[in-house]
Order: sequence, then C-alpha cells, then structure tokens
Amino acid sequence: MSEIANTPEPPYYAVIFSSHRTEGDDGYARMADRMVELASEQPGFLGIEAARESLGITVSYWESLEAIRNWKENAEHREAQRLGYRQWYSSFRVRVARVERDYGI
Amino acid sequence: MSEIANTPEPPYYAVIFSSHRTEGDDGYARMADRMVELASEQPGFLGIEAARESLGITVSYWESLEAIRNWKENAEHREAQRLGYRQWYSSFRVRVARVERDYGI
Repeated sequence: MSEIANTPEPPYYAVIFSSHRTEGDDGYARMADRMVELASEQPGFLGIEAARESLGITVSYWESLEAIRNWKENAEHREAQRLGYRQWYSSFRVRVARVERDYGI
Repeated sequence: MSEIANTPEPPYYAVIFSSHRTEGDDGYARMADRMVELASEQPGFLGIEAARESLGITVSYWESLEAIRNWKENAEHREAQRLGYRQWYSSFRVRVARVERDYGI
C-alpha cells in the first residue's frame, strides 16, 4: 500500500513514470516490489508513490540528478528496465523534474 | 480512462497531486470529472494523467508557472479545492515541478 511520500523542503527531484502494462504478469509484480525495495536503499532516495488503474503512475523522489543517474545505472535496475522495454510495458514515459515547491494537509 | 499525456519537448511543468480520499463519494466523482474537463480548457494546459488505488496520483502538465497559477485561481477550481480540503481528502500533497527531460516508448 503506497503512502504519500514524506519528502523534505524543496528543491528536490521527481521521476514520474507513467506506463501501460502488457497482458499477464510474467514476473512483473515480483520485480516491481523488488525495485521499490532496491530504490529505497539507494543514496539520495527520498520516497516513492504508486497507483495503477488502466494507467500506472509511479513517482520516485530524489535528492539530486546524480542520485537519479546512479539509480538508472544500477545493475539490477538495468535488468528490470530491459525486461520493461521487452515485455512488461506496451508504452511508458519517464519524466525527470525538479520540484520547486509543495504544500498539503 | 487515463492515457499517457502527449506532452511537447521539455522544459514544461508538472503538478503532482497525491491524495488519500475520505469515505463516500459526496459529489467527488462528478467534480473530479468536471475539473479534468475544465483544466483541459485552460491556456497552457498540456495534458493530465491519473490513477488511484489506496493512494491517488494525478499529474497535470502545463506550459508555464503562470498557467499553473491561473488554474489554481480559477473560480470553479477554487470551489473544488475548498471542498477537497473540507471533505474529500484526508491528506494530500501538491508538488509543482519543472520537467527537465523525458523519454519513453
């Protein structure tokens, strides 16, 4: 169950990952759980939020662009990305953004 | 049914709205649909993506911070925001971010 990420004062960075899944699991659910666990262990990780209906949206938060780059190049994550391209996603878009301000209740 | 937004080349802006709903509808679904329709008519609107499980994530995309400010101050949207604070959301966070780059398939 995803919660609202407890991020620090801006500025920080967000990676917005929007995707449509292919049919069937093919190891996806297990890998998705593992990627959340693995991301959480990376330097500069600040939090993650996820929801899926027909469209899936996962937003991960990071201290810096360098932290995002390191995570993208993580060997186990690269294998997950490869499988994502090949079989799990029919389409996706990754957007890297700098969070300038935030507020809420 | 939400699709991946067909945004232009960065830079542009994203408003990431993460929320937990209260129990019951209380006019929420109708207002949510109306807000998507109304946002789409605003100057500088680029697209919107949404998904909800226990957590809801809606990301709207905009040409500029001025477009986001104008949308936030739209009278009908302000009434929706007021009801959001009062009754529809038990918690939420709004993050305004500048999209620096994007890629996908």
